[in-house]
Amino acid sequence: MHEELRAGLVGLSGYTGMELARLLTAHPRMRLSFAASRSEAGKRLGDQYPALEKLPGADLIIRQPDITQAAAQCDVLFLAVPHDAAMEFAAEARAVGVAVVDLSAAFRLRDADSFEQWYAIPHSRRALLKEAVYGLPELYADAIAGARLVANPGCYPTASILGLYAALKYGFIGSEDIIIDAKSGASGAGRKAAVPTLFCEVHDSFRAYNLGKHRHTPEIEQEVSLMAGAPVRLSFNPHLLPVDRGIHATIYAKIKGSPTLDEIHAAHVECWKNSPWVRVLPKGGLPETRNVRGTMFCDIGLTLDSRTGRLIICSVIDNLCRGASGQALANANLMCGLPVDCGLAQAPLMP
Amino acid sequence: MHEELRAGLVGLSGYTGMELARLLTAHPRMRLSFAASRSEAGKRLGDQYPALEKLPGADLIIRQPDITQAAAQCDVLFLAVPHDAAMEFAAEARAVGVAVVDLSAAFRLRDADSFEQWYAIPHSRRALLKEAVYGLPELYADAIAGARLVANPGCYPTASILGLYAALKYGFIGSEDIIIDAKSGASGAGRKAAVPTLFCEVHDSFRAYNLGKHRHTPEIEQEVSLMAGAPVRLSFNPHLLPVDRGIHATIYAKIKGSPTLDEIHAAHVECWKNSPWVRVLPKGGLPETRNVRGTMFCDIGLTLDSRTGRLIICSVIDNLCRGASGQALANANLMCGLPVDCGLAQAPLMP
Amino acid sequence: MHEELRAGLVGLSGYTGMELARLLTAHPRMRLSFAASRSEAGKRLGDQYPALEKLPGADLIIRQPDITQAAAQCDVLFLAVPHDAAMEFAAEARAVGVAVVDLSAAFRLRDADSFEQWYAIPHSRRALLKEAVYGLPELYADAIAGARLVANPGCYPTASILGLYAALKYGFIGSEDIIIDAKSGASGAGRKAAVPTLFCEVHDSFRAYNLGKHRHTPEIEQEVSLMAGAPVRLSFNPHLLPVDRGIHATIYAKIKGSPTLDEIHAAHVECWKNSPWVRVLPKGGLPETRNVRGTMFCDIGLTLDSRTGRLIICSVIDNLCRGASGQALANANLMCGLPVDCGLAQAPLMP
Amino acid sequence: MHEELRAGLVGLSGYTGMELARLLTAHPRMRLSFAASRSEAGKRLGDQYPALEKLPGADLIIRQPDITQAAAQCDVLFLAVPHDAAMEFAAEARAVGVAVVDLSAAFRLRDADSFEQWYAIPHSRRALLKEAVYGLPELYADAIAGARLVANPGCYPTASILGLYAALKYGFIGSEDIIIDAKSGASGAGRKAAVPTLFCEVHDSFRAYNLGKHRHTPEIEQEVSLMAGAPVRLSFNPHLLPVDRGIHATIYAKIKGSPTLDEIHAAHVECWKNSPWVRVLPKGGLPETRNVRGTMFCDIGLTLDSRTGRLIICSVIDNLCRGASGQALANANLMCGLPVDCGLAQAPLMP
Repeated sequence: MHEELRAGLVGLSGYTGMELARLLTAHPRMRLSFAASRSEAGKRLGDQYPALEKLPGADLIIRQPDITQAAAQCDVLFLAVPHDAAMEFAAEARAVGVAVVDLSAAFRLRDADSFEQWYAIPHSRRALLKEAVYGLPELYADAIAGARLVANPGCYPTASILGLYAALKYGFIGSEDIIIDAKSGASGAGRKAAVPTLFCEVHDSFRAYNLGKHRHTPEIEQEVSLMAGAPVRLSFNPHLLPVDRGIHATIYAKIKGSPTLDEIHAAHVECWKNSPWVRVLPKGGLPETRNVRGTMFCDIGLTLDSRTGRLIICSVIDNLCRGASGQALANANLMCGLPVDCGLAQAPLMP
Repeated sequence: MHEELRAGLVGLSGYTGMELARLLTAHPRMRLSFAASRSEAGKRLGDQYPALEKLPGADLIIRQPDITQAAAQCDVLFLAVPHDAAMEFAAEARAVGVAVVDLSAAFRLRDADSFEQWYAIPHSRRALLKEAVYGLPELYADAIAGARLVANPGCYPTASILGLYAALKYGFIGSEDIIIDAKSGASGAGRKAAVPTLFCEVHDSFRAYNLGKHRHTPEIEQEVSLMAGAPVRLSFNPHLLPVDRGIHATIYAKIKGSPTLDEIHAAHVECWKNSPWVRVLPKGGLPETRNVRGTMFCDIGLTLDSRTGRLIICSVIDNLCRGASGQALANANLMCGLPVDCGLAQAPLMP
Repeated sequence: MHEELRAGLVGLSGYTGMELARLLTAHPRMRLSFAASRSEAGKRLGDQYPALEKLPGADLIIRQPDITQAAAQCDVLFLAVPHDAAMEFAAEARAVGVAVVDLSAAFRLRDADSFEQWYAIPHSRRALLKEAVYGLPELYADAIAGARLVANPGCYPTASILGLYAALKYGFIGSEDIIIDAKSGASGAGRKAAVPTLFCEVHDSFRAYNLGKHRHTPEIEQEVSLMAGAPVRLSFNPHLLPVDRGIHATIYAKIKGSPTLDEIHAAHVECWKNSPWVRVLPKGGLPETRNVRGTMFCDIGLTLDSRTGRLIICSVIDNLCRGASGQALANANLMCGLPVDCGLAQAPLMP
Repeated sequence: MHEELRAGLVGLSGYTGMELARLLTAHPRMRLSFAASRSEAGKRLGDQYPALEKLPGADLIIRQPDITQAAAQCDVLFLAVPHDAAMEFAAEARAVGVAVVDLSAAFRLRDADSFEQWYAIPHSRRALLKEAVYGLPELYADAIAGARLVANPGCYPTASILGLYAALKYGFIGSEDIIIDAKSGASGAGRKAAVPTLFCEVHDSFRAYNLGKHRHTPEIEQEVSLMAGAPVRLSFNPHLLPVDRGIHATIYAKIKGSPTLDEIHAAHVECWKNSPWVRVLPKGGLPETRNVRGTMFCDIGLTLDSRTGRLIICSVIDNLCRGASGQALANANLMCGLPVDCGLAQAPLMP
């Protein structure tokens, strides 16, 4: 019988905190042992989220965010708080020695200046950046396993990087002129009270936002540049979907040489054959966000548009699970010596 | 190490078949060993439902519905086919000795005449009715455990019967004048191509249907009559919600005597305290369909309307999981000697 | 050539203010001449609501709410503000002599004590209650035409009262034991920033709220009592639909005597034959909220449930147009001597 | 008093036929005088579409499609039928002399070979192609006014062409490397019974389809080539939105020279200042599909992405009104000598 690992969670009132609480109810080796939220402190978790009633963790009392107290009660600490709070909490947590998975953007960009430029707040914990590992398991599993501070990737970067990885690695596309037209469900906008995300403002409508200036751009460019072996500048453009969950990234890239779709498809299948979560669709198949709902899957569809010389890659994830809390849990698994997919093998909820 | 139980599924192209395939991927003791569908025979399951790719069962080849072949390959057989086909398949299955959970209405009504009247088709297997057990685990767990043919309850009846059970049992309400105003997500209408269930016919709209004449009425009356100890006639009225999953039954019943809400609430909590799935909300709480999405939970909210002398019971389930395939799996668990909630302890997907 | 009437609107940031601005763009005899909003003052209307750009009124500059200034610039003044502000603005408007249509509940209940009890705020302008006319055109057209202060009905009351009117008038149902199970789109909850009405909290879900204690209850009872000729106490129970617009009231009432559906249906057709907006569906027909979207129509479907001795009336309206701003405009039409449906003859937007 | 013009409509069971019937109820100078549908012949229009009850045209009896009979009863004939039927009906209509607006693709492509290649059916009426005018009023108003056969544009082409027009005309962008990432509501998929457009297959999900090979591609290229003065090959890629109505085209084009956003924006405003329907949003503004719901508006938002040297044009329309039936009515207006926007000045329904 294995000992149960204890997980702490700071930040509970948003969708990523809720999602992590959901996923931990089903984890066979890790349980929620500490949960904190400034706004909800004092409540039972099951009263705060009736969805979790009669499930493991429902009786936990939500605490004030106190990192020392948290560290004493957990083996790994998840931070689901704003960027600036995350910097401080992460520093405190590292000081008392507890392992941290940070779901904010605080430690994702290796270049602190770039962070300050895109996020328009100072980076108060630059020294920790060297220590932080970018938590995309398919790319950095070994480093994550040895890390004590993991920067959990953004939702759009997860879909974009996984979508581009094989095509760049095998040299099918150039790194110039890449356009990512991305669409996200409304849970990506968070759970704070605001008119633009009211039901009647989002439902039965569709719009773009932050074209060419979304803060996930430098994160995508950082990782794609590493894959391409040279600095890459690309065009990233998000849109808001009237769905709860799901990201669909339609990626346009120029073909290099004259590969056939058979070759491109076979290389993708080969590339991801050992991944538990990246699923390359059959030739001609196109992914749907519902097919990954609630899971860690990244579904990839490939279209060779010979008329215009482009490879069109559709990469689809669940923004809350794969794009945030599920990936955080996968990182925690690796950090704790568990299989990466421990507790994360759900089937999509469809319909 | 326990031996793995083998499940067969006949009928795969509808939402209940899909849901059963989904749930079986996560079952620790039972695996899908045989899947049949007239329209999809010959395909890999993972090709038919890309959502299931890279999950257990994805490589299964869909067969023609052949009960003898099925029986040879499974310990329990699920029938997710129309009522008339279910009668014949169930009879064949019983003849070759395999245990059956039938998701159709073929064996739900103990009175075959009532079946023929409400369903407007002949009942060709009346003899099997005596053998069939109504598969509502909270009421009939022991009988189900000993059964070889279980009639899986309808979705509306599941929500309605569980909602009314405690209030009738403890005598808080009369059995006269009960009105059930029920609302169901569109998956309840099935997956056949039809104009009235097209996206643009259902989305952003709401309507009633089959008021006073829905075929789940006699099923509800049958069970409520047993609970009340006398024949009950009630008013059951369904509506179509623009959501994928979820049933919300708003049940209006006249108060007997003058119980307080405290008394009613306490009795409900007591009644369901050992149930893994029935959750009585705190006093004043009202359930939401999203809080049970994808699960076996039945959430119950109680309102005492003293002005009009009524108890208003809101009873909420997921029509596909609790109201069909999940309940079928719970029944199979009992029939196979497993804990009723084996493989069915998921947290709701919310949002 | 007729002179153009000038309409003033105080309160613009909510959905009822938006809807009134929308409807006035298409009115052939009335134009928006004054628009005020504390939070949006100083903006062009077309900048505040891009949907209205290039339409009549788009160039209007939004003002601070100043009733004297408003009165100087309009023939009729619409108040789309909270109840307490409405009392004061209405009093000011009456003092300077301008006709008022108040969309709040401030003047709907003839009994100020009842108002204070249900709304939990003091009624500061009781003297005006005698002057106020309840603005349901089908019932009170003459009084409205002579009024200077019209209390615009609530959305649920509009659907409920119109639904019950003919059946009570012709004596087909008793006034005891009436239950109204009502469902409303999310625009009924208003446009203020709040977590419970965020997209991800409402979408793909369904729930009841304020069962037995919604503030529209006394308003419905007031009018139904007048119709029945005796005090009526009924059970009114609202639910939240994941749609933008639309109310569906399912009304359960006990049959008096033994009328046939033919008789009941014929009486309803007769009752509403001269109404431009109340549409009695063919026998067996049931209404859908989409069929009234954006319009003044009230669609009524009749079901005689002989098994349980009840008439089930489905009454459907658009809560923003018929249930608020469109009805306000109809009242203004009558007050200004125009045909009641002037500028209000749109076809539903479907799908 | 003007004489009323009579409109005929062949094809009524789809969304474009329904939309035309809706729009004609509000037209001050044209009324529906003949409606035909093979599947619905014999019914009253108001019984077929309860949304239209008590509106002009509701009492019309739906006929069999007989062009001679139609011609005798109308001044202009709308064809809302499949491509191949449209060819024959259009030829018959021209033979008997009635003016035709064809909503199918039969006469949109000037090159019949291209039609046959993309649509995979023979073009049986090539001679009529010379006579047909492409019915985009902003580009071809004069030709349309003189035409007797108008090919009504496709929905995606309408959004794409209007979006690209000014930027190409003023030389801000090159015609190489244009990518159109388009998203459409489900009404664009039509109203035939089919599993992929069922509510539960579309709701709360998102997917691409026909990437690089949608049949609207040659139509867009035809018109953009004319604008660019040289053959243009572009990448057109559609996606399916879980909304009823609305197209959002995100258009990526390479900047020529080094114009500022001020210059680009000012040129667009100038270009469209006299158009009743094209609305250029303020600098920094991005369009939303709900802001054009049910109308003829085309909302355009401009983003200059200097980092990647691209102009990103968001062009938004209602696919059923502007992208089909409303545009057909605008064309009929021009053909009949009416102002282009006669009966088409509605405000968007929002929310």
